[in-house]
Amino acid sequence: MNLLLLFKDDFINDAGRVRLEGRRFRHVLDVHRPSAGDELRVGLAGGLVGTGRITSIKETSLEMDVNLLNAPPAALPLTLILALPRPKVLRRILLSVTAMGVKHIILINSFRVEKSFWQSPVLQPENIQKQLILGLEQARDTILPEVLLKPFFKPFAEDEIPSLIKDTLPLIADPGANEPCPRDVRQPVTLAIGPEGGFIQYEIDKLISLGFNAIHLGDRILNIETVVPSLISRIF
Amino acid sequence: MNLLLLFKDDFINDAGRVRLEGRRFRHVLDVHRPSAGDELRVGLAGGLVGTGRITSIKETSLEMDVNLLNAPPAALPLTLILALPRPKVLRRILLSVTAMGVKHIILINSFRVEKSFWQSPVLQPENIQKQLILGLEQARDTILPEVLLKPFFKPFAEDEIPSLIKDTLPLIADPGANEPCPRDVRQPVTLAIGPEGGFIQYEIDKLISLGFNAIHLGDRILNIETVVPSLISRIF
Repeated sequence: MNLLLLFKDDFINDAGRVRLEGRRFRHVLDVHRPSAGDELRVGLAGGLVGTGRITSIKETSLEMDVNLLNAPPAALPLTLILALPRPKVLRRILLSVTAMGVKHIILINSFRVEKSFWQSPVLQPENIQKQLILGLEQARDTILPEVLLKPFFKPFAEDEIPSLIKDTLPLIADPGANEPCPRDVRQPVTLAIGPEGGFIQYEIDKLISLGFNAIHLGDRILNIETVVPSLISRIF
Repeated sequence: MNLLLLFKDDFINDAGRVRLEGRRFRHVLDVHRPSAGDELRVGLAGGLVGTGRITSIKETSLEMDVNLLNAPPAALPLTLILALPRPKVLRRILLSVTAMGVKHIILINSFRVEKSFWQSPVLQPENIQKQLILGLEQARDTILPEVLLKPFFKPFAEDEIPSLIKDTLPLIADPGANEPCPRDVRQPVTLAIGPEGGFIQYEIDKLISLGFNAIHLGDRILNIETVVPSLISRIF
């Protein structure tokens, strides 16, 4: 945890005094082993980052005086459309792409997505939020990404993609593509990545018919956890 | 599994007949549910890739006629020096970088590597090999990477780094660096990546004094599993 993410409810007065209790209190204790007077790096969810100087540590809570000064790191101008991965992988990817600065994540269905994945508890809002917070704390960011679930491919593609990709460079990762993944793109991007095993041809054709450009990352087939950061890092 | 990796011992005659038994037989059965006559994508460890046409499936074994035709995908001209990550993360990274085509992996000590990590069973040769094979099978490659363990930072740095980095571009990932990570490098690279929490300044200074260039990947701190593919994908 490189930053402690605070929420408005954590503040107990208008002068920037924060009280932490419960899980986050114990986590700070375990990870930082802080003493009164120590400064922690903190950020306000949706706001600035700064420091919290610990004023007191009691048995079940601690208080700190928070000073918020700086903007969080810049976001990536990216909308990530990802075929729903298996739950264990999804947890790590949510953390990873949040840390990288992705703010728009759309989890979609695809022919090769196992139906049971849509029933996973990982998709419950509080569990998604937990991974996003871990990602923000990793990267010292404060702006929670938006995560949308689209369990029906065709209506999502036909009804929502056209406005979604407007004014962006829409890319679909496809190992069979002729064009390599572009580098150092200086404009907003919409990036679609299929499931393990890939999008089926119908899905690729549908996205291409809506304006997507098929791009590849070489002749190696990478797993989803590797391909997602690899593509994002190659593009930006 | 996008390719079944075969070893010389799997061949039962000189005409390319292979017999699979045990764990790999059951794995092929579970994953591919093959019938006699089906073709699987196969590769010979250290050699070519091709197809295996199944000739018979019995209760505890199957046989196939293997035809090896094509070279495996090109390797990356990269030596990866990685501060030993925690065991769970190491397993995934070995798979991931093997799939990306890294052939030289050196796991080193660093001040912030927990000593207990060096005792992990994940470091036993057969367990390392298992992850490497999974990475090769993921990427349809056949050339096993070499993995070296260097549990002492200073002698490794002083005695081995100079010859190791000769004729390569030596890069050390350091969030405090002034230079961004280079893109589309067309020469061999040696890339050093620290542990969670980073190399300490002494280690960075030591590597820089030996010729390394400190480079950063932006102002976000990423976890090791994210930063490794991100850096490799940015560089090549």
